[in-house]
Amino acid sequence: MRTSQLQTPALVVDAKVLEENLAAMAAALPGPRLRPHIKAHKCTSLARRQVAHGASRFTLATIREVEGMAAAGMGEDLLLANEVVDASRLGKVVAGGARVTVAVDSEATIEAAARGGVREVVIDINVGLPRCGAAPNDAGRLADLARSHGLEVRGVMGYEGHVVGVEDRASRIAQVEPCMELLLSAHAQTGGELISAGGTGTYDINTWANEIQAGSYALMDSAYAKLGLPFGQALHVLATVISVSDGWAVADCGLKSLGMDHGNPTVLGGSIWFCSDEHITFAPDAKVSVGDRDGGARPC
Amino acid sequence: MRTSQLQTPALVVDAKVLEENLAAMAAALPGPRLRPHIKAHKCTSLARRQVAHGASRFTLATIREVEGMAAAGMGEDLLLANEVVDASRLGKVVAGGARVTVAVDSEATIEAAARGGVREVVIDINVGLPRCGAAPNDAGRLADLARSHGLEVRGVMGYEGHVVGVEDRASRIAQVEPCMELLLSAHAQTGGELISAGGTGTYDINTWANEIQAGSYALMDSAYAKLGLPFGQALHVLATVISVSDGWAVADCGLKSLGMDHGNPTVLGGSIWFCSDEHITFAPDAKVSVGDRDGGARPC
Repeated sequence: MRTSQLQTPALVVDAKVLEENLAAMAAALPGPRLRPHIKAHKCTSLARRQVAHGASRFTLATIREVEGMAAAGMGEDLLLANEVVDASRLGKVVAGGARVTVAVDSEATIEAAARGGVREVVIDINVGLPRCGAAPNDAGRLADLARSHGLEVRGVMGYEGHVVGVEDRASRIAQVEPCMELLLSAHAQTGGELISAGGTGTYDINTWANEIQAGSYALMDSAYAKLGLPFGQALHVLATVISVSDGWAVADCGLKSLGMDHGNPTVLGGSIWFCSDEHITFAPDAKVSVGDRDGGARPC
Repeated sequence: MRTSQLQTPALVVDAKVLEENLAAMAAALPGPRLRPHIKAHKCTSLARRQVAHGASRFTLATIREVEGMAAAGMGEDLLLANEVVDASRLGKVVAGGARVTVAVDSEATIEAAARGGVREVVIDINVGLPRCGAAPNDAGRLADLARSHGLEVRGVMGYEGHVVGVEDRASRIAQVEPCMELLLSAHAQTGGELISAGGTGTYDINTWANEIQAGSYALMDSAYAKLGLPFGQALHVLATVISVSDGWAVADCGLKSLGMDHGNPTVLGGSIWFCSDEHITFAPDAKVSVGDRDGGARPC
């Protein structure tokens, strides 16, 4: 099938750019240095492309992602880099033969992991992003508590999420080190083989962690595009021009088809005015006609 | 099942508030005065509740919504209030016995309707919102063109989408009239029984249209909530607190579970700091604990 035959709006992946992104990352972080994050694409067929480029362990954000990757036969080493208060579904995945490690940052989440049948944890450390994660100086106590519940402590994780998007590279470099000093201080208390951290914005900067949890590099997004990284935009929404007026045109793609967390999308070949539920109103750079798709009106 | 048994994040509808909203709208706009817009919920089981409150004709934004409503047996009078350049799927719905009317605003969309097997159209008029819609003084020409293609012209539609969200009621009232004067001037050229317009913000103000295309009133949203309308918030995302730190807490609901087009969600019982892919970081109004759901951490 050609893209011209697709019903629109259609979410399309540029396979060539995807492969280039995967190859570039695999060259920079070969084998177990990379633990690709699945949350960005939530797609086992894309994960299989990552396996083809050398990945065998994965990072995940939700229980469902863990279940999906295990069911697809990619459950060799799944790290749920997130806290859960009911780990029973994870326990079923473990019982099914996959290896699942879950992040914990409190007594409640340690108890949930043990109760749910998970056997391995990492202690999640707050390295500066106000989100999940224990205080670094609490890492030893939590590791001991986890072990007292029969859990294997594989090490620590700590996501420098407040740094990965800093546009100036020198600033990113300067800000990662103190975060990772906190993580290493926690790791000194817990032991374990994993020091897991990082993201697409720090994949080549974070040399303290021994595995990098990058995910966005595969498909990229408009925010990371500003950082000058060696990864290209591989994900677009293809739309069709359905109406043309004097000064603007409308394509059949809107809020219901787009992630709006970074604001309005970029329209290739035009300047966006606003999005409605099922429309984008934009000023085209050149004349467009009803029915046009490529060039004039390809929102991404 | 009780909401306490739901896996989170979970999208929940408050059935009592929904029923109150449907009853309030049915009282204000009984029978054919209301043509509920399906685009807001895209859900046939909710549409059936609207049928129970007297609706028999519906407004839709996409071809797929038309197909879904027809397949669910609610195809008595479906108005696709949007332009399409390939109407073949609509033609199949018509051939299957449903009544489908499609909006047209150009020669291309008229030809598409005729070619695709649709038999009835409304002329879509630009009444001030820069989106789809022909110029009012072009309505007669387009109606004649449609008839020359064998299409029945049922009338006009024109959505005052730039007015429905104006917070001050007096301003909304003042702004609707000139929009509808444009629509009536177009209708004078086209004829037909339909003068279709309006939305939740103008449902009781727009007395020029003979049917109102309101949709948001059923479940409501945080933007319409500011207008003092007699409809309550019926849609929430239920989440669970998964981590508590000194000054903030984190719930298991984020960008991937939320519509972000109106910005950050409202957190009941707290003040939001920011959303991540699968997290909300917020400052709780009162002490919360890991595992809490109601009161302390129910993003909506």
